[in-house]
Amino acid sequence: MGIVDKSKKLINLFDKDLASRRKIEMKKSDILIVGGSAAGIVVGMTARQYYKDAKITLVRKEEQVCVPCAIPYIFGTLGSTDKDVIPDAILSKNGIELVVDEVQSIDRDKKTVATSRGETIGFDKLVLATGASPIVPPIPGIDLDNVFVVNKDIDYLNALLKSLNKVKDVVVIGGGFIGVEFADEFKKRGLNVSIVELLPHCLQLVFDEEFCIRAEKRLSEIGVNVMTNNRADRIVGDKKAEAVELSSGEKLKCDMVLLGIGVTPNTKLAKEAGLKIGEKRGIWVDPYMRTSDENIFAAGDCAEKTSFFTKKPSGLRLASIATWEARIAGANLSQLRKKQEGVIGVWSTIVRDLAMGGAGMTEKIAKDAGFDLFIGRATTVDKHPGGMPGAAEMNVKLIFEKKTERILGGEISGGSTTAEATNILAAFIKARSKVDEIVTFQMGTHPALTASPIVYPIVRAAEDAMTKL
Amino acid sequence: MGIVDKSKKLINLFDKDLASRRKIEMKKSDILIVGGSAAGIVVGMTARQYYKDAKITLVRKEEQVCVPCAIPYIFGTLGSTDKDVIPDAILSKNGIELVVDEVQSIDRDKKTVATSRGETIGFDKLVLATGASPIVPPIPGIDLDNVFVVNKDIDYLNALLKSLNKVKDVVVIGGGFIGVEFADEFKKRGLNVSIVELLPHCLQLVFDEEFCIRAEKRLSEIGVNVMTNNRADRIVGDKKAEAVELSSGEKLKCDMVLLGIGVTPNTKLAKEAGLKIGEKRGIWVDPYMRTSDENIFAAGDCAEKTSFFTKKPSGLRLASIATWEARIAGANLSQLRKKQEGVIGVWSTIVRDLAMGGAGMTEKIAKDAGFDLFIGRATTVDKHPGGMPGAAEMNVKLIFEKKTERILGGEISGGSTTAEATNILAAFIKARSKVDEIVTFQMGTHPALTASPIVYPIVRAAEDAMTKL
Repeated sequence: MGIVDKSKKLINLFDKDLASRRKIEMKKSDILIVGGSAAGIVVGMTARQYYKDAKITLVRKEEQVCVPCAIPYIFGTLGSTDKDVIPDAILSKNGIELVVDEVQSIDRDKKTVATSRGETIGFDKLVLATGASPIVPPIPGIDLDNVFVVNKDIDYLNALLKSLNKVKDVVVIGGGFIGVEFADEFKKRGLNVSIVELLPHCLQLVFDEEFCIRAEKRLSEIGVNVMTNNRADRIVGDKKAEAVELSSGEKLKCDMVLLGIGVTPNTKLAKEAGLKIGEKRGIWVDPYMRTSDENIFAAGDCAEKTSFFTKKPSGLRLASIATWEARIAGANLSQLRKKQEGVIGVWSTIVRDLAMGGAGMTEKIAKDAGFDLFIGRATTVDKHPGGMPGAAEMNVKLIFEKKTERILGGEISGGSTTAEATNILAAFIKARSKVDEIVTFQMGTHPALTASPIVYPIVRAAEDAMTKL
Repeated sequence: MGIVDKSKKLINLFDKDLASRRKIEMKKSDILIVGGSAAGIVVGMTARQYYKDAKITLVRKEEQVCVPCAIPYIFGTLGSTDKDVIPDAILSKNGIELVVDEVQSIDRDKKTVATSRGETIGFDKLVLATGASPIVPPIPGIDLDNVFVVNKDIDYLNALLKSLNKVKDVVVIGGGFIGVEFADEFKKRGLNVSIVELLPHCLQLVFDEEFCIRAEKRLSEIGVNVMTNNRADRIVGDKKAEAVELSSGEKLKCDMVLLGIGVTPNTKLAKEAGLKIGEKRGIWVDPYMRTSDENIFAAGDCAEKTSFFTKKPSGLRLASIATWEARIAGANLSQLRKKQEGVIGVWSTIVRDLAMGGAGMTEKIAKDAGFDLFIGRATTVDKHPGGMPGAAEMNVKLIFEKKTERILGGEISGGSTTAEATNILAAFIKARSKVDEIVTFQMGTHPALTASPIVYPIVRAAEDAMTKL
C-alpha cells in the first residue's frame, strides 16, 4: 500500500466526527522533509512527481534559503544576499507545505518529530536533509570579531557583507572551492587578499597538480597572495582580528579572516534518534537512500556517500550530489524505484575567467586507490578558428583504468563552456565508456561555441590516451 | 602484414640499385588521401597514430584550406579569409606530405592516381575525402553577377567579401545553417537582409518547430526579413542581380544573392573509378569506411552515411561527422580496428546571442520514421541564481522511444554553453541511455557556469518525460 492510500485510510477513520478530529489530530504529513536547501527542495519536488496526492511538508529553520554554491558571489558579483535567495515558489508550485521551525527530535516509534516551537508533526516517511556546517577549527583567536565562516544563514551573511565595508586586508584560510571563489570576489571589491592553504596546492583534493597550478597562477595574476604548504596557527588581535600567524613564522596583517576549510554533516538529530552513522560521519544510507530506519531517508550533505568507483565511503559533499541523492530518495519513499550507483563527483569552479571542471577520480586519487592508469591530454582553443571572439585555451585530461580501458575521471580548464564540457565526461563515466568509445564520440561543433572537430579536445585526449595503452 | 611492413619490403627490393630506383620509381605513398579539409586532415592524423612509419601523402587542389564551418563568420565577425585558414602545420607536425594538385582519375588495378599536373602517385591504401559542393539550382538568373554560393575556395570567398563593400540589400536563398548564419553576419555589416525559405520554417530539417520559431524570432529582432513558405523563382537583373522574384508574387530588391540550399557529395572521381554510389548519392562505404574496393576508403561529405537509429541511408553532412568518419577510416587502413555504429548527427548554430543545438532525431523526424515517442521539456536559466552575469534562458527538449525508454534525440536553446550541453545529449544517445539514467545523471554545476542543480534542465526534461510514460 502506497503512502497516498495509507493517508486516505487514516482520514476515513475520522470522517464521522470531523470536528473532534480537528481538535485532537496533531499535524501530520505523508512525507515530512527536514531541511530546505537543495536536497530538501528536490526531495519534495520528486516526491510530488511520484505521489500526486500525498501531503508533503518541509520544515526548515531559515526564513529564507540562499543558493548555497553562489554564496561567494554575494560579496562581489551579486552585491547582496537578496539576489541569492531560492524562491519559495518552487515549494508552493509543487504543493509542498512550508513550515519555518526547527526539528528538535524524532520519535521513531510514534513516527513524529518535535519542533522548537512545541509542535509535534507526524509522518509516514521522514527525510533528513539537514545539510552540513562549516568546520570551525580550535585555533587561538577563532572567537575574535571579524572572523567568519561560511554559514548558510542570510543574517550571518549580511553581517559579513556589512563588515566588508570597513575592511582592507582579508586572510582566507583554506584554498578549496570556497576559499578560492571568495578570494576572487574579494579582489573584485579591491581588497588585499591572501589564501592560506595547508596542502602544497589550492584545490588539491579535487584537481591534479597541473590544474591546481593553473588556478594558482590565475589567482596570482589577479593579485591574490597564495600561501600554500602553510598552516594558520593563530589569529591575533584586540577584540577584532588583526593578523594571522602562520606555521612558516610569517604574520599576515588583516581586518578580517574568512574560514573555508570544509564542512561536517549535521547529524545530531539522526544520532539522537539512534540512526546509524557512517565512516565519513554522515547518516548511513543504503543504495535507496534509506537510513537504518526504513521509514527515514537521508539526502544531501548530511548523508553518507559511497564512491561509484571503489564502493568505499566518500567524503565528497556538493549541491549537485545532494540533488541527485534527493531525486533517488524522493522516488523511493513508498516503493523502491531507483538504486544509486555511488557518487561519481562532478564539480567546477572559476577564477575570474579561468574555469576548471573535474569529474570522477583525479589521477592522484585513482593511483592512491590502487588503479593502474593510462592518461590522455589535449590542449586547444574552445572556438574555431582561434580568432573567434572570446576564444579561450582549453585543456583536457582524461584518466583511464588499464585493465578495463574505462574512463575513471577527467579534468578540464577553459572558458565559459568548461562546466558543461565536464558534464560530457560525467556522462561517459556514468556509461562506463571505454577509451575507444570516446575516440569515436559523435560530438557537435560550431565555430562560435566549441573547439574545431579536427582537434575536439575530449576526443583528442582519448586518442592521446590510446597511444599510452 | 601491415602497410608499413609492405612498404619496407617494396623498398628493400630496390635497395641494390638506388640510383636507377630513383629514376624509374613513380611517387608512391603507403597512404594517399585525396582532399584537404576536415576529413582528409583527420584521416592523416589518425593514420599517423596507428602507422608510425607509414608514408602518408595528402593531395588537395587548394593552396590554402579554410575552416569550413566558419565561412559565414568571414563576412562579419572575422572580417577576412586570412583569419579562417586551417594551418598546414597540422599536416607537417603529423609527418603528412602535402601535394597541391588535383587528382583526375584512379587506376584501381595499378593502385595509382593521375593528377592534373601529370603526376602519377601510387598507393597501398587510398582515402577519398573529396567533400561536397554547393547545389546550384537551375533558376533563371542564377548566372548573373553578384549571385554567390558558398564555395570552400579562398579566392572565391575573397571575391564575395570584396563585392559586399558595394552592397546594401542581400537576399539569402535557403534558411538552413548557412543561410541563417550568413544573414546574421550580413546584419552585423549593416546590410538589409532577407532569407527566402521553401519550408514553413528556417532550420526545419534539424530542429523541431518550437526551436525554429525561436530562431526566426531572434532573426526578426535583429532585423532580418524572414520569408518562409516561399520559393525563389527567378533572379532578375541586367548583368548584376537586382531582385529576386518569389513564388508568392513578391519581389525582393537586392544587390547580391547568396545561395545556401544544400550540398551534393563530390563523387565524380569515385564514379569514374567504378566505385559503388549510395542511395543518398554519397560514395558507398561499409561500417569500416571501406568503399566497394577494399583498398579505397571514403570519409566526410563525399561518403554515404547510415543512420544510427534506423540503419537507413542518412543525408546528414557535417564537419563533425566528417572527422568522426575520418577517425574510423584512419584507424582501419591496414587492419580493421573500429566499426562505426551509424550517424547520430549533432549540430549547433547561433543567431547573435541565441545558440541552438540538436543531437539525434527531432520529434518530427522520429515520428516520421515510425517511432512511438514520449517527450520531456524544461526551461530555466543557464546560471544560478538568475542574477549572475550573462545568464540566458535555456530550453531543453528530450525525445525518447516508448518501447525501449531510450533517448533518440534532444534539442537545446540557450547561451554560450548550448553546444557542449548538446554534446552531453550526444553522449547519452551514444550510450543508448534510458530516461531513468538521465533523471539520475550526476552532473556538476556552478553558479557562473551552469543552471542550478535543483532545476538542471537536462535532468528536469527527463523527469518531465517520465510523467508522460
